[in-house]
Amino acid sequence: MITEIAQIDVKPGMENDFEAGVKSAVPLFKRAKGCKGASLQRSHETPTRYRLFLQWETLENHTVDFRGSADFQEWRKLVGHCFASPPNVEHVTEVMRGF
Amino acid sequence: MITEIAQIDVKPGMENDFEAGVKSAVPLFKRAKGCKGASLQRSHETPTRYRLFLQWETLENHTVDFRGSADFQEWRKLVGHCFASPPNVEHVTEVMRGF
Repeated sequence: MITEIAQIDVKPGMENDFEAGVKSAVPLFKRAKGCKGASLQRSHETPTRYRLFLQWETLENHTVDFRGSADFQEWRKLVGHCFASPPNVEHVTEVMRGF
Repeated sequence: MITEIAQIDVKPGMENDFEAGVKSAVPLFKRAKGCKGASLQRSHETPTRYRLFLQWETLENHTVDFRGSADFQEWRKLVGHCFASPPNVEHVTEVMRGF
């Protein structure tokens, strides 16, 4: 299991539009091959900054299968106009769960 | 509930030391007021980059109670020598859980 962290800065004033767009996109993630979870988190220090956490079975489920799908284009249609800059995407895996 | 995301870049070659240090620090987090969870994640794209996710009941449990405690000094003693640069710390709250 791998976690995609997409750090997304939205244009000031677009916060509600962006949150609604992500909500609309949930079915796209739900039906994406290998996608096992989605959570949207908002920064306390920079309220125009969000992090979308997506759980994938494999890295390629995100980078190949999803990015190559029509649903990726649909995702960008739903939220792309809110982006202040291109999202910063990184993948992480858990190396220790303390508790 | 608030999540602290501490992005920590370690010096190349210090990965094992750092992971062992975080493991040793788990009891400090476990006894910290309001700390409800700890998970260490490692970047796929940049293997010297980690993110420590800590769950806190309130922001102040981290920024006031923990940072003002002797255990914070102890935490830094355990892992500070591994840091390539000062950690980048941000707090986030979940605004949507898709699934």
